[in-house]
Formats: sequence, structure tokens, C-alpha cells
Amino acid sequence: MGTKFEGFPNVIYAQQFSRIFLEKYFLPLTDEMQVLFENRGCELLRGKRMISFFYQPSTRTRMSFEMAMDYLGGKVVFSTENAREFSSGAKGETLMDTINVINRYRPDVIVIRYDHKIGAELAAKVSHVPIINAGDRKPGQHPTQALLDWRTIFKHRGEIDGLKIAMVGDLDKGRTVRSLSYLLGKFKGVKIYFVSPPNTRMGSDVKRYLRRHNVEFTESTDLRKIAPLVDVVYQTRAQTECGTIINRKHGYFIVDKTILDLMRTDAIIMHPLPRVDEITVEVDSDPRAVYLTKQIDSGLFTRMALLKMILSPKS
Amino acid sequence: MGTKFEGFPNVIYAQQFSRIFLEKYFLPLTDEMQVLFENRGCELLRGKRMISFFYQPSTRTRMSFEMAMDYLGGKVVFSTENAREFSSGAKGETLMDTINVINRYRPDVIVIRYDHKIGAELAAKVSHVPIINAGDRKPGQHPTQALLDWRTIFKHRGEIDGLKIAMVGDLDKGRTVRSLSYLLGKFKGVKIYFVSPPNTRMGSDVKRYLRRHNVEFTESTDLRKIAPLVDVVYQTRAQTECGTIINRKHGYFIVDKTILDLMRTDAIIMHPLPRVDEITVEVDSDPRAVYLTKQIDSGLFTRMALLKMILSPKS
Amino acid sequence: MGTKFEGFPNVIYAQQFSRIFLEKYFLPLTDEMQVLFENRGCELLRGKRMISFFYQPSTRTRMSFEMAMDYLGGKVVFSTENAREFSSGAKGETLMDTINVINRYRPDVIVIRYDHKIGAELAAKVSHVPIINAGDRKPGQHPTQALLDWRTIFKHRGEIDGLKIAMVGDLDKGRTVRSLSYLLGKFKGVKIYFVSPPNTRMGSDVKRYLRRHNVEFTESTDLRKIAPLVDVVYQTRAQTECGTIINRKHGYFIVDKTILDLMRTDAIIMHPLPRVDEITVEVDSDPRAVYLTKQIDSGLFTRMALLKMILSPKS
Repeated sequence: MGTKFEGFPNVIYAQQFSRIFLEKYFLPLTDEMQVLFENRGCELLRGKRMISFFYQPSTRTRMSFEMAMDYLGGKVVFSTENAREFSSGAKGETLMDTINVINRYRPDVIVIRYDHKIGAELAAKVSHVPIINAGDRKPGQHPTQALLDWRTIFKHRGEIDGLKIAMVGDLDKGRTVRSLSYLLGKFKGVKIYFVSPPNTRMGSDVKRYLRRHNVEFTESTDLRKIAPLVDVVYQTRAQTECGTIINRKHGYFIVDKTILDLMRTDAIIMHPLPRVDEITVEVDSDPRAVYLTKQIDSGLFTRMALLKMILSPKS
Repeated sequence: MGTKFEGFPNVIYAQQFSRIFLEKYFLPLTDEMQVLFENRGCELLRGKRMISFFYQPSTRTRMSFEMAMDYLGGKVVFSTENAREFSSGAKGETLMDTINVINRYRPDVIVIRYDHKIGAELAAKVSHVPIINAGDRKPGQHPTQALLDWRTIFKHRGEIDGLKIAMVGDLDKGRTVRSLSYLLGKFKGVKIYFVSPPNTRMGSDVKRYLRRHNVEFTESTDLRKIAPLVDVVYQTRAQTECGTIINRKHGYFIVDKTILDLMRTDAIIMHPLPRVDEITVEVDSDPRAVYLTKQIDSGLFTRMALLKMILSPKS
Repeated sequence: MGTKFEGFPNVIYAQQFSRIFLEKYFLPLTDEMQVLFENRGCELLRGKRMISFFYQPSTRTRMSFEMAMDYLGGKVVFSTENAREFSSGAKGETLMDTINVINRYRPDVIVIRYDHKIGAELAAKVSHVPIINAGDRKPGQHPTQALLDWRTIFKHRGEIDGLKIAMVGDLDKGRTVRSLSYLLGKFKGVKIYFVSPPNTRMGSDVKRYLRRHNVEFTESTDLRKIAPLVDVVYQTRAQTECGTIINRKHGYFIVDKTILDLMRTDAIIMHPLPRVDEITVEVDSDPRAVYLTKQIDSGLFTRMALLKMILSPKS
């Protein structure tokens, strides 16, 4: 199975995964993981050691990974959100020192969140232990989020080809929409509607990638015009406290009752969380809202599947 | 047993517990927990998962809960004191998002310390997983502290009825004295002597509750007058660095050799810790000082008992 | 075996260990630990409980201790780098309160990093549970670092007698060079070359100790003159961001290609990490550089050996 997993055993970029891998190997494995979870866990990774090494707090992502390890019977032998303390000085160099040091303790996998862009990539270059990128910095990637988003959509639609998706909000800073865009480039007939204020448009690197992979995209400042057209509204967080207020001056970006009424009945609403007020609370109880339910579950099953593939590829 | 435990399986307020529950079920169970502890633990909660979710550091309380879980054979699957990072924005709403997310991972219990008043209550409203309030914000509650204080007093006196207790210090900000006052309202003939500077008097909400429950109380600014009268001197921490110095201008609030000499020989001195200088070190070796010994032990047995009740009510 | 271990079961100062202990008991035990590590761990300390109690973040040291505990089958039941929160106020007093509280939970060992000099010593005075000093504050000690440095040198040279070692950098603030100097005072014919700017020379307390123990030492500001003479170049971190730049004005303290070319072929280069730029990256691949390899390994085996001695002295 591992032979199909390009770039393995490291998980660094969303685009390292092929369509074949995603559909034939990854997806069924996440479903197996769901069964293990519903059975309250297993001992598959007994004796395996994970280190969570976060250069900035990300309680949500760290919890998802550590719960995934626990449900598989593995152990989180060391966990920190204070890793920045290690790196007092010349940044890139010290990251390599750090990864070298951690390697000497021979854990079975390192989950890293770095506060600079190329952290996980650099780490994987020097590490003999598999590296999982739990998010790097802006604009960076968050490949496990892309995988879980991908799975959420696939489980809902049964396929990705022909997907129409709106990505809304601070698109230039959002790791999640960047990583998901890269992943969608693997599929056919996908159309992305970027909806953002003019000052937070999707980066040109991603747009070049989409053009190269024949992914159609448009840019807009009014979610009301886009909402009726799409299978998925993927909302993202305003990265500054006053971000949403500023946004309102330049267009319409909030998912609320108005948008719900415009959306198709078979569409879904996603959000990587945490949410501020860019999705109003009234939306939560709508059956199309999956950000507090199926999307979270997909995150757990996705991380379980990755850990299983990396730490026990044969079983 | 669980049927007697009002509000179960959540532990939110001190006053949710009935007298019957406390005396007939809770107290004997804490004694059983002491035996388990002295036997160096057990496997009663094997396979059970606790999440410690703290919005502010509280090393002391977190340690007590996590040690309790360990002595029962359960597992702390995730622990953070950085939870505030989750809540970037509209506070109450995001707490509910957070609790919803944690619920998807299906832990068996969530221990939460929140930095706003109604945190645990809100959490319990949306959570399908039992919530234990490990302290919320000012003026808030700290029900497990109230239970351990209650147990400490009960184990010493053999009953609560007729108790005379001095509560000393920053009474308006102290969660512990607030929660303990609520709990004492369940008993007969209790008299509370509040001793504090005029500007940190006990809140009127608590006083109204005490009147409604026929608990006698007085207010004073001189501990020397009160010390000879009471079974318990319950000292609290000056919440500001210079607090105690300010206090001294307005009365006498320090527990020292002078107070020791005035106290009854069968009285005890309690403190929720951490202490600054409101109890002088010379007091520590007095047999009446229980804040570094029996009160800590009661904290462990209390949290073990609560976890046992919530996670293994039948065994 | 424990009878030979002066000061046991606490590990507070580098100088508490005798030469006999180090050579006859400690060193062979670290080699046994290496075998256990290479076998991916054991269950020797099953049921034993360690508490990591750090008053300041030290991800590196904490990781080494917690991995050591894990490879021996013991459990880290509580871990914090936020312990400072405990100590809101009168420092020394509150540390004693804290240690008293932790003792009530009856862990089997407490690993403490304190932010004041005499922390571990104070802790050991009140604790019934063994204390391991994981570094105290400036100028303080870091005895487990001294032991691991000692082992690294011993494994390389086969003995310590006759050692010529350069200690380079901010010597007045560096705990590690202080602790190592104390330890080297136990051996014969050792010569230490202190190389530092005039304003960061080794403290007079250490120099007095060395004179008393007949350890020869010199002071210099040019590593190029010293490098050809020594078995070990022990580099330390510039403690301020701009420290190294300042240093360059006052002499020559960087380990780079120039120094490599001057050093003997059988010498080694050590560093306690984290490194800033006082060793250039080009040095890393030289076989004499052990700071990212054998020195790290020695740290793990040293901490495993200490934990084994303290927690399972008979086995």
C-alpha cells in the first residue's frame, strides 16, 4: 500500500498525494478508522511513539492528532506547544538542530507545527523519522486539513470530479484553502469560486497551479451571487479581530440565514475552525452545516489513517 | 447511587449536591478512594479517557485531577492550559464550538477551567460528555474545591451541623469561599464569620443565599476577635501582589503566631493555596494547620471519587 | 549499589558524585541503558510515576527526561512548564509549599527546573520524594548535563585523568560549564582552558573550587591558540542575541573551519545546545563534532541510569 503513497513516509504538502492513492487507499482506510473509533479504539500501534512538536499553540490540531494516536493504541511520549523556546536565534538552522536532536530519541513519528513557511519541508530533509506537517506559516500549508476537507466532500458527494466550491474569506492568509486548492487540482471538472475582499485574494502561486491543472476559478466579492451555484461553501476565519467588519465594506462574505436560503438543498457548509462570526450561530442547526460534526470526524479518521499508514503500513 | 447525585453527571455548582448525597454516598466513597491511593492505585477506569481543558494555567488543580485519573487507572488523553488560543473572538459562542468539537472525539469526561463566569454551565448545556468545573472566573465557582473543603472539615469534626467557620481575606474575588458558602447552606446551625477589608467583602449574592438558607453570618475586620470563636479558620490568598499590605491598613487578617495562640486547640486552619504571606511560615508546623496535608489529600480523594462516580457509577 | 551514591536519592549538584561511583557504577549502568534503548525500551519501571515540574520552558531537557522514563516503562503522570504560576509571590517559601503539595500525591520522583539558584536544594530539603535538578538559575547548576558531558568524554577517551578541555563562551552564566568544572575536580591531571570575553569569565567560586582540587586552569580570549592543545572543545551558547557579535570585538570564540583545522584529529567538539551561531554549520559533518549525536545519546542514557538507580535500585 505504501508504494502508492508518493512522498511517504512524510506528509508535507497536500499535492504530494495522487488521485489513485486518495480514492483507492486513503478513503477506504479512513472508513476502517471510523469503525475502530466506534469500537472505542484498538491496540494496533501499541509500542509506537509519537512526538507532538508545536512552535505555536494549536490546541485543536494537536488534540486531533493525539486523540488519533490514542485510539490506535499508540503513545504520545512528548508534547509541547512551547517549541519556539528551542529556536532562540537563527531560525532555519536551529530547526535542523532540533530535528536532529529529536531523531536521536528514535520516536516513530514527529508531528510538527512550525511558525515559518518551509518548516516541515526542512524537517523532512534532515529527519530519519517520518514528519507530519501539522501546519506551517503564512502563507503555508496544512496538508492533513486538506485531506480531511477532501474526505468530507467526497463522503458527501461520492466524488470530487465536477465539484463546484466557494472558498470565502481571508484567502491570502488561509493555509487550509491553499492546501485544499492544491489537492483539488488532481481532479476533473472542478470549479472554484474565490469570494473575498480585494485585499485578501487568493495568492497568485495557487492560481498559477490551478491554471496549470485546468481547474476553473473565478473571483468575487459577493457570496450571495455564488451561494446558489455551489456544492460546498467553504468559509474561513477572518484572521484579524476586525477583519470581518472591514470585509463588509467591500462586499458580502458572511454565511447566515440569507445565504442558507440561497444555497442548494444538497450543498454543505464547511469551516476549518475556530470560527469568529463569519458563520452566524443560526446556521449551526441546519443539516447542511458540517463544520461541527462530519468535518471534525473526518479530521480524526484522516489522522488515524495517516498514522496507521506510517507506523504500521503492512497490517 | 447516581440517582442521588443531582445534576449528574456534570459537576458545575457546589450547591448541586444534596446533604444526603454528601454524607451517605460521597464521603464513604472518598474514604474508599484513600484506600485505593494507599495501595498505589487501581485499574478501575482502565480505557476511560479524560481531557483537561484549561483556559488559564492552574497547575495545582490540573495536577490534582490528572493524578486522580492516574490512580484510578484512567488516561489523560489530552491536556492543555493554552485553551484560550481556541477562543479567538466572540467568547461564549466559541466555547460552545469548542465543546462541540471535543465531544466529537468522545472522551469520557472533560475537566474545564474557563476564564469567564458561566463557562462550565454553558459547556454542560451543549456537551454530551460529562463536564467537571475546575474553576471559573471572578466571581465564579470552584465546586470540587468546595467538596474537598467540606470533606476536610467533616473528617475533622465528624459533622457539619453547628460549624463555626471564619472565612478570611479577599472574599469578593475568592471562588473557593463562595463555593464553600453555597455548600454550607445545606447544613444546620452553621455560622460563618466573614473577615475582610471593607473593599473585599463577600458578595451580596452569596449573602442572600445564606439568608435564604438560614445560615447565620457576621462581617468583621479583625481576625483576632474571631479566631477564638471558630472551629475553622479558612484563609484565602490576597489576589493582588500588594493586597495584604493594603489589607493591614484596614484591619487584621494575617494568620500568625498571635492568631494561633488565640485559636481553640481543636480548631483547624485551611487555605486553598497558593499562599503568599497571609499565613506565616511559623504556622505550618502547628498540628492545626491542614492546608499542606489533609486538605491536599482530600482534594485527591474528592476528585478520584467524582471521576469514579461519573465514569464507573455501577462498580 | 545505592550505598555508593552520595547524596542519593536526590540529584542536586554535580559534585555530589564520587569518582568511584561514576566509574564503577554509573558508567556501566549507562551502557546497560543503551542496550535497553536499542531494544526499544523495557518495563523495568512499570507503575512508577514521574512528575516534570518546570518553572520555565526547557523543551530539550524535559524531552530527554520524559523519553528516558518512557524507555524504562515508567509513566510521566504530570508535566508542566508553567510552574511559575504556582509561585505568585514570596518565591522560596512558595517553592516549599509546592514541593509539600506534590509530595502528598506520592509520585516516585520529581524532576524540577527552577528559575532561582537554590531551587533544587531547597526542594530536596522538604521533599520525601526524590528530587532531580533539571537546571537552576544563573549562575546555577545542571548536574545531569554534567554527568552526560562527563560520560561523553569518558566514552571517547576511556578516562578523564589528564584531560585537556577548552570551555568557551559566556562562562559566567553557563550552568553547564560550571557543573562540568565541579565534576572534573574529582579527577587527576585535568587542565581547563577557559576561553571567553573579559566580561563573561568563569565565576570566582568555581575557580576557587578548582584550585582547592588541584585542577589547573588558564584564561584566554583566543580560541585559535587553545584549539590545538585540547582533547575537547566545549562550546557554549551566547546568552544574549547579540552576544557573539560583542564577543568578536574582544577575541575569537567561534568554532568554525579555522578552528577545525587547528584541532587535533582525536579531539571532540561538544555543545549543550541550543546553538546560535557560535559553531558554524560546516562543522556539523566533521567526525569530531558530537553535539548532535553522541552527546545527545549520552543525555538519554544518563537520565535513564539516574531514574533506574532512584526508582529501582535493587533490580
